[in-house]
Amino acid sequence: MTDTDKKALELHRQWKGKIDTTAKAAVKTREDLAIAYTPGVAAPCREIHDNREEVYTYTIKQNTVAVVSDGSAVLGLGNIGPEAAMPVMEGKCVLFKEFGGVNAFPICLDTQDTEEIIATVKAIAPTFGGINLEDISAPRCFEIETRLKEELDIPVFHDDQHGTAIVVLSGLINALKLTGKDKAECKIVISGAGSAGVAITNLLLRYGFKDIILCNSKGIVSKDSPRLNWMQEKMLDVTNPRGLSGSLADAMVGTDIFIGVSAPGIVTEDMVKSMNDDPIIFSLANPIPEIMPDVAKKAGARIVATGRSDFPNQINNVVAFPGIFKGALEGRASAITEDMKLAAAKALASLVSDDVLSEDFIMPEAFDPRASEVVAEEVKKLI
Amino acid sequence: MTDTDKKALELHRQWKGKIDTTAKAAVKTREDLAIAYTPGVAAPCREIHDNREEVYTYTIKQNTVAVVSDGSAVLGLGNIGPEAAMPVMEGKCVLFKEFGGVNAFPICLDTQDTEEIIATVKAIAPTFGGINLEDISAPRCFEIETRLKEELDIPVFHDDQHGTAIVVLSGLINALKLTGKDKAECKIVISGAGSAGVAITNLLLRYGFKDIILCNSKGIVSKDSPRLNWMQEKMLDVTNPRGLSGSLADAMVGTDIFIGVSAPGIVTEDMVKSMNDDPIIFSLANPIPEIMPDVAKKAGARIVATGRSDFPNQINNVVAFPGIFKGALEGRASAITEDMKLAAAKALASLVSDDVLSEDFIMPEAFDPRASEVVAEEVKKLI
Repeated sequence: MTDTDKKALELHRQWKGKIDTTAKAAVKTREDLAIAYTPGVAAPCREIHDNREEVYTYTIKQNTVAVVSDGSAVLGLGNIGPEAAMPVMEGKCVLFKEFGGVNAFPICLDTQDTEEIIATVKAIAPTFGGINLEDISAPRCFEIETRLKEELDIPVFHDDQHGTAIVVLSGLINALKLTGKDKAECKIVISGAGSAGVAITNLLLRYGFKDIILCNSKGIVSKDSPRLNWMQEKMLDVTNPRGLSGSLADAMVGTDIFIGVSAPGIVTEDMVKSMNDDPIIFSLANPIPEIMPDVAKKAGARIVATGRSDFPNQINNVVAFPGIFKGALEGRASAITEDMKLAAAKALASLVSDDVLSEDFIMPEAFDPRASEVVAEEVKKLI
Repeated sequence: MTDTDKKALELHRQWKGKIDTTAKAAVKTREDLAIAYTPGVAAPCREIHDNREEVYTYTIKQNTVAVVSDGSAVLGLGNIGPEAAMPVMEGKCVLFKEFGGVNAFPICLDTQDTEEIIATVKAIAPTFGGINLEDISAPRCFEIETRLKEELDIPVFHDDQHGTAIVVLSGLINALKLTGKDKAECKIVISGAGSAGVAITNLLLRYGFKDIILCNSKGIVSKDSPRLNWMQEKMLDVTNPRGLSGSLADAMVGTDIFIGVSAPGIVTEDMVKSMNDDPIIFSLANPIPEIMPDVAKKAGARIVATGRSDFPNQINNVVAFPGIFKGALEGRASAITEDMKLAAAKALASLVSDDVLSEDFIMPEAFDPRASEVVAEEVKKLI
């Protein structure tokens, strides 16, 4: 057990849960009670009953997000179930509040059945202004998110997919600027064909990248790949334009950008050396990247980003999701659109001004207070 | 619109929701983030994955209750739906926190189907240490509560039933003391055969009362009653021992105690006059009681209680439910038992010491800080 682990256990024990539900309405006197509860509370109830939209005026729905997980794909820990997922979901709620001023509450589900998850989230939706799905394994996460977006009138956002895609794109925008590479000409390999890999691919294509090869643990996702899930099958239509098959190493030859959302240590120096000039390496497996930054640099990488705070260029969703929901709730968005995600990525990239932009500084810092503000503004502009 | 209504609307607008979710774990630095979130958070996740019980050590489950409603029977407003029920459920969460130190979060459900409600509450249960059902209409509430108690390993409590029953019994204990009536000899009429009426009947029988007549809007619940629901049918086995039928007025002749959880203004002076000496009147319909206290007193009532804070002897669940869950959570109870409810009622009654006990002071005040403490202690003794 590391020192961080020990400290984390001790502090979690002391916290007794990382969030509190606190009263904004004081009830110190009989009059307080008559306003916040009976009989006064009947007045806002009647207003909402007369006009359902008023729920956004009088209740927490206006500023509260559910952080929903079934515990099936938690961090690098895998399928640890709903109780063991709770510390992560509480932590996410802390980040929503501290970085975006958004109230958030964890909902960990005692089911991993797609239809039951959809039914449960729909059933509890009246309480919430938005649903943040978290750590639900692929490919179930795609159907759950798609269906909930269709069937609910509040924004639904799977952060492992779209939060990751937004921050990756924002980093790439600045990496292109530094290297002078053209998005229409770049060749990209994405290692990891789960929730993050698929969403990154889709957002990069929408941004204007053309040539993306998606790899899973067996190698290039191609017509010859064994046992693709339905989403990976679907990705064949938009990826691998040169019709390659083979290993990850084969895929990387002659490419410009590697994005890893997969497994520790699977990228070698030789693989980096096989890439085009000025290779860009986003090695995001956590806590052990696909290739360590010093190794990648030694092999010729021009820019290296990881998911870790102890290396330069941390790709951290915390610069995106709090602002996404802050903007969506403040603007009463009914959905988070693709255009909002693109705008958020561009806004985040622009926070790194030209005078500080460098190989070791392509992303706004996790604690940059402007991040959630600019993201929220972009979201609101597009509602 | 009354002044209270106007003030309630204005304050609800200002509050923007009556509860906040606040962070106990600070995340001001990278190190904070590494402890409260990744990578440190993986340590408590692993502990819980290894031993599910540890979820009570490391997460909000240890001190958090869900306040669950389908909005089908909200206050006197009826079936107003989940959104319009939100202000009440948020208010309840405020009371849990302010009176019992218990974190509570509202969950308003977009379904009124018994099986869907049961499935949804079971699905979200991993997050919570207890479930407080609220304002769900009878007779569905009985099945929902019974099934959830069977199928969950955390306490499930329907406050409209059992909170009300506890506070009514606590008031009656003191009313008997003052009037010298014997529980084994008392004749009781309960007006209202919904969730509260049924639960009050059951708790009073368990306490030792013998002769209880239950009435619904058609009169005495008897073998001749039309259209009884299944629970009212079941109550025939334990109520109406003298086999009466007829109106509420017929039921009240020669009785000692009237308990109304029904409708405004349905009890007349003459009905009170037809009761035995020293009648005890708990007229709990809100905001307009079955009979107003001054009228009941004029007709000879010895003791009158209502649900209102502007008359003496307020019967208010707030002295019970926060302590019930405080005790259950602190003691890790898996259920709220009948013995706990009896003990809670006795403890609440005992808070009114002999030197202050009088016709106008049979209940501890809503703001009596001892209430939740003694109730919690009694619950913990019986775990």
